[in-house]
Amino acid sequence: MHDFDRHTAVRRVASGCYAAEFDPTCVVGGAVNGGYLLATVGRAAADALSETGWMPPAPISVSAHFMSVTTPGPATIHTTPVVGATAGPTTVYARLCQGDRTRLMALATYGELSKDDGPTLLAASPPELPDRADCINASWAPPEVRDLAPMIDHFELLFDPECVTWIAGRPSGRGQIQGWFRWADGHEPDPIALLMVVDALPPVTYDLGLEGWAPTTQLTVHVRALPAAGWLRVRHRTRHVAAGRFEEDCEVWDSAGRMVAQSRQLASLPRERR
Amino acid sequence: MHDFDRHTAVRRVASGCYAAEFDPTCVVGGAVNGGYLLATVGRAAADALSETGWMPPAPISVSAHFMSVTTPGPATIHTTPVVGATAGPTTVYARLCQGDRTRLMALATYGELSKDDGPTLLAASPPELPDRADCINASWAPPEVRDLAPMIDHFELLFDPECVTWIAGRPSGRGQIQGWFRWADGHEPDPIALLMVVDALPPVTYDLGLEGWAPTTQLTVHVRALPAAGWLRVRHRTRHVAAGRFEEDCEVWDSAGRMVAQSRQLASLPRERR
Repeated sequence: MHDFDRHTAVRRVASGCYAAEFDPTCVVGGAVNGGYLLATVGRAAADALSETGWMPPAPISVSAHFMSVTTPGPATIHTTPVVGATAGPTTVYARLCQGDRTRLMALATYGELSKDDGPTLLAASPPELPDRADCINASWAPPEVRDLAPMIDHFELLFDPECVTWIAGRPSGRGQIQGWFRWADGHEPDPIALLMVVDALPPVTYDLGLEGWAPTTQLTVHVRALPAAGWLRVRHRTRHVAAGRFEEDCEVWDSAGRMVAQSRQLASLPRERR
Repeated sequence: MHDFDRHTAVRRVASGCYAAEFDPTCVVGGAVNGGYLLATVGRAAADALSETGWMPPAPISVSAHFMSVTTPGPATIHTTPVVGATAGPTTVYARLCQGDRTRLMALATYGELSKDDGPTLLAASPPELPDRADCINASWAPPEVRDLAPMIDHFELLFDPECVTWIAGRPSGRGQIQGWFRWADGHEPDPIALLMVVDALPPVTYDLGLEGWAPTTQLTVHVRALPAAGWLRVRHRTRHVAAGRFEEDCEVWDSAGRMVAQSRQLASLPRERR
């Protein structure tokens, strides 16, 4: 079992009720990373659907509203599968709680990813990244950064140097962060894991000179294809920062050159700035 | 009272339970338009929050998963407000039902829109539209189109001619539809109304030569600012059509030149093609 599977595991304690245990290494600034929360909720939702006798192949679309900060330690996920137009239930309402506080509310729709139905028309293209040897490795971050974000030790995360000039105090101002991504322990991408990958990079606001934690209000992920094994290319972008909020769009492309996930989050600007 | 307010009205029949009545004119191809559903659910969620004694100013972020087709006539909306980190509840889980079928599940987060907190940084720019006198008026559509989509009679919808060449059988292939929008009866934009506007235009797949109804799987709307009175500019785009699905991104800009809403929906390709 890889670390990622262990860190996002759930245990059914009653029908529609799951126990999770968030690892202290899956945090940024003391808060459990939103991507790990989504993947964990995704596992609970998949089990809740399978418990109804209908085994859904993969998450197609997951939306989450973040209510309060999740801390490492135990959590409970309450799930309610709902029947739609099809023969079986497809969508689960999930609520992740710690004690009497709701941390996250989510809706997760499951379905068939691999159907080859209709044309492929692409205006989108994969992120253009330098060779991995020419990238900035996240593991080179100074100890105080890695103490703040121990999560990065789970990954091999190689940044496009053009997007991390903020490290040297010269943010590019373009609002883009992109890089190569894979797991440090050899875990290969799968649909549940993509729910985490879309939230693994630092907030794109760093590239605008706005450093610090950017609390997520809402995050929607669409899984567009079964990912191939190998390196992923991940790009975060924002186009609109206003009234204390910004959107962050993420695309994940697999080693076969397909867009496998896209997400958008609405987040608040970091409160502290250099 | 304007038509839009009447068409999206809800009546509290018990705590957390609302009655709605969808008008036969708010449909496309017999199905109540998703935007009207979102605005109606938005009103129920706002009332559910106000019932807790906390009056939220506006919807900030609403995500909806579409379960089955909503038909004109009565519907029930069940709401559950959930308390987050702040003093009061901010997010509502809502389920829209007709008879024993769930039509739509939604999460709606309310908050403060008008706070002027932090910098405004824009890479996004408003859609470049021709003068309204040079646009194609949706009301010029032939009777069979207006019978199929009586909804368009509620609007003044003026399309950029470059984006509706599919009317003449020559889709541009760019995957973009944009135009000017306002209500025919003088209703002015407000945050709830923006939840509808993001789903008012025809599916962007028409511009790719894929005509017909494109059923929405999921739709997330972020309201970014209080809209000014006057004409809105609306742009729909897709960048990635694959495996029978596409994303449609929408931006709505107000008469003061601000982006007031942005949305993304995941939809299925139309099954019938010319």
